[in-house]
Amino acid sequence: MRHLLAIEGLSPVVIGDLLNLAESYALLNRSGKTQRDRLRGRTLINLFFEDSTRTRTSFELAGKRLGADVINMSVSTSSVKKGETLLDTASTLNAMQCDLLVVRHDQSGAPNLLAQKVEAAVINAGDGMHEHPTQALLDALTIRRHRGKLEGLTVAICGDVAHSRVARSNIHLLNAMGCTVRVVGPTTLMPNSIAELGVTVFHDMPAGLEGVDVVMMLRLQKERMTRNLLPSSREYFRFFGLDAQKLAFAKPDALVMHPGPMNRGVEIDSAIADDPTHSVISEQVEMGVAVRMAVLDILSRPPAMPQGGRH
Amino acid sequence: MRHLLAIEGLSPVVIGDLLNLAESYALLNRSGKTQRDRLRGRTLINLFFEDSTRTRTSFELAGKRLGADVINMSVSTSSVKKGETLLDTASTLNAMQCDLLVVRHDQSGAPNLLAQKVEAAVINAGDGMHEHPTQALLDALTIRRHRGKLEGLTVAICGDVAHSRVARSNIHLLNAMGCTVRVVGPTTLMPNSIAELGVTVFHDMPAGLEGVDVVMMLRLQKERMTRNLLPSSREYFRFFGLDAQKLAFAKPDALVMHPGPMNRGVEIDSAIADDPTHSVISEQVEMGVAVRMAVLDILSRPPAMPQGGRH
Amino acid sequence: MRHLLAIEGLSPVVIGDLLNLAESYALLNRSGKTQRDRLRGRTLINLFFEDSTRTRTSFELAGKRLGADVINMSVSTSSVKKGETLLDTASTLNAMQCDLLVVRHDQSGAPNLLAQKVEAAVINAGDGMHEHPTQALLDALTIRRHRGKLEGLTVAICGDVAHSRVARSNIHLLNAMGCTVRVVGPTTLMPNSIAELGVTVFHDMPAGLEGVDVVMMLRLQKERMTRNLLPSSREYFRFFGLDAQKLAFAKPDALVMHPGPMNRGVEIDSAIADDPTHSVISEQVEMGVAVRMAVLDILSRPPAMPQGGRH
Repeated sequence: MRHLLAIEGLSPVVIGDLLNLAESYALLNRSGKTQRDRLRGRTLINLFFEDSTRTRTSFELAGKRLGADVINMSVSTSSVKKGETLLDTASTLNAMQCDLLVVRHDQSGAPNLLAQKVEAAVINAGDGMHEHPTQALLDALTIRRHRGKLEGLTVAICGDVAHSRVARSNIHLLNAMGCTVRVVGPTTLMPNSIAELGVTVFHDMPAGLEGVDVVMMLRLQKERMTRNLLPSSREYFRFFGLDAQKLAFAKPDALVMHPGPMNRGVEIDSAIADDPTHSVISEQVEMGVAVRMAVLDILSRPPAMPQGGRH
Repeated sequence: MRHLLAIEGLSPVVIGDLLNLAESYALLNRSGKTQRDRLRGRTLINLFFEDSTRTRTSFELAGKRLGADVINMSVSTSSVKKGETLLDTASTLNAMQCDLLVVRHDQSGAPNLLAQKVEAAVINAGDGMHEHPTQALLDALTIRRHRGKLEGLTVAICGDVAHSRVARSNIHLLNAMGCTVRVVGPTTLMPNSIAELGVTVFHDMPAGLEGVDVVMMLRLQKERMTRNLLPSSREYFRFFGLDAQKLAFAKPDALVMHPGPMNRGVEIDSAIADDPTHSVISEQVEMGVAVRMAVLDILSRPPAMPQGGRH
Repeated sequence: MRHLLAIEGLSPVVIGDLLNLAESYALLNRSGKTQRDRLRGRTLINLFFEDSTRTRTSFELAGKRLGADVINMSVSTSSVKKGETLLDTASTLNAMQCDLLVVRHDQSGAPNLLAQKVEAAVINAGDGMHEHPTQALLDALTIRRHRGKLEGLTVAICGDVAHSRVARSNIHLLNAMGCTVRVVGPTTLMPNSIAELGVTVFHDMPAGLEGVDVVMMLRLQKERMTRNLLPSSREYFRFFGLDAQKLAFAKPDALVMHPGPMNRGVEIDSAIADDPTHSVISEQVEMGVAVRMAVLDILSRPPAMPQGGRH
């Protein structure tokens, strides 16, 4: 593995290996031990063209716990407008001998473009409406820890699917691992291409949640919606917000997930978010650090075969 | 000690122990030596909901000198408005296995609320108009280094007492350590509850400074004052700004202190701020790093008694 | 050497020593090795009053690769307006026992002023229209690696010379090292005092580039130009932008340089910027880290003679 740009295209074996390694880092983190030598002397750059305190912090922690030098580069769109192209940025990062590059960008495909030009291993930390692969991995790890496996489970991804790279990465990963994936949401928040993704589409929650193992709520991306399509929060919650009544349609021990940050009372009821018998939301954050440690670790390993390799 | 949320309620013994440990870190810093092993492998998060380059830098230095992994999380109010509650933040920090959490917030009580929910040790780095305990500790350490003790000294805290968490923390600490505390300032800048704090109130500087050992000036918090009560800088300086004439009422060797950043020519005359025979303002900053090292150190120690303890 | 505030006044021997040390750090970086013990326990503060992700990152990397504790202090002008003077900042940095202080400021002379007041070694990372010494050193190192020497070369510095601290530092360094320096640009972008700097002035590119060894393009500092003097980008490119036609006047193996970030299509044609037979732009960035490591290293050494020394 050279980069982690997307879940689409990863084999179940590769995904399984990443989850196994992440599981062992999760145990290491809980034990309070560290493994500083793993990335000592390596440079990890967090290149964020879009603000995200949570994801940046998670990668920063993962890098530091493995001993890397972590540099945060928050690039506001204004300074991008100052004239430097993405490819000039790539060239700068190469010259600085960056080993691991974590990229978040509001344009789909920006990490792929960078990956073609940089010598560093590139990790996509969310690009436009494309993918957010480490989120899907941490979601999968969280499910696997509770159900022992992924295969055969039915997962409902609910809400603003159209604007969600989290949904897209999860659909690819869960399909690859043998889950049955449903998406649930209003027509206006479904992408046109949804049918091609191998999911069943539901437009009401009772039908969509009927008998599922996992309910994965999405954040309502208000900032991405065009004005006139924006539902009122109260109306949205009535039809698509997860509350006890709707959750009752899922299996009795169904897991409730959310990538955070939550709009409580909009896409999820507070009581459900905080209910320890269903909610694994905080464990998702914990697995996030472990998954990122695993990804950084694997991408730092020399290629197994002597076929040219990295720089 | 589990958290450092306030000075109010700390015993003189606990305060004395903190000052003694801070004193030893001050000597260590001056010698250029470090103690990297003290917090190696621990995660310190600086969670600042309010901007403060000085205080954030001081905690960052303290953490790094003790070998901790330091992560800065500056949370603008705008992103808080995006929907995440303080308790969701707490849950995220727990999941990230944060050991030490330094919090600054514009709402009084925010660090206490977080402390109820996080597993990390919480240090209040200033909350609303409530407390700023490390500031009071560094002020006390600075005084003690010059006078050999705190007991029996008379300290005048001058200026915008109403809006000052620094004043509040200092009043509690100095009272606990046996000082006589006076507050000096215009009626409009005195809190209503001032009488309950065990201080004597003065509304003019000559009387308030008469014979004191220490003159502690406060920053005029213009940004916190409602418009119509705001005095003009020139008028304020004439009546309450510290200059040679007013300082002459204090003891001849009185210490002059200021928590910074100073409004020169508003609450303090430049000549006084820079006069080495009285001013210990820069030593306060130095003691700030030492005090924060001591606090981080003590809060990282396992509890003395086997009574449950931290995770 | 106590500080690095300017190239002006440095002797060829000192410059040569810095370049030699930087060269060895460049080799170390390429080998992937580090030298963490060099600055272990030292505190490096990046004090940026002007935003610059590239330069800040370069110094941060340099410091971390040598094992220093690196603290970033970005000071917006607004917080400066809150009342703290530059001298109060100096006093704060001293109290925090800062060893190495990297300063960028929009006012010429600010690093010099700080250097008079702080105990730290000060490195000027760009001040107003004055100097940017590490940029000139990295440019010189890049040239020397390709030509084996500096002496006897002819270098044309082209574009917005008037607003360029990069030009100023380069002129001093190249003159000191025995180069012939030409400046090329429109009259409106030439400083009045240009004749005093020991350069030949050209107002058209063909004459200015005739037979030169190195073409050093400058960034068009649009944000620094007063409105009515601002040429249109298209017009500027036609007369002063570097394209194949104009470059043909230089020596066939002439080096093309740019301090970045580039305005492609304004001061330089994209094809030229990316042409590996001439362009060393990305190597300049690489040498930037090496030069900064050398500067941090040299400024951290105890003075050779026992004549008082640093704190």
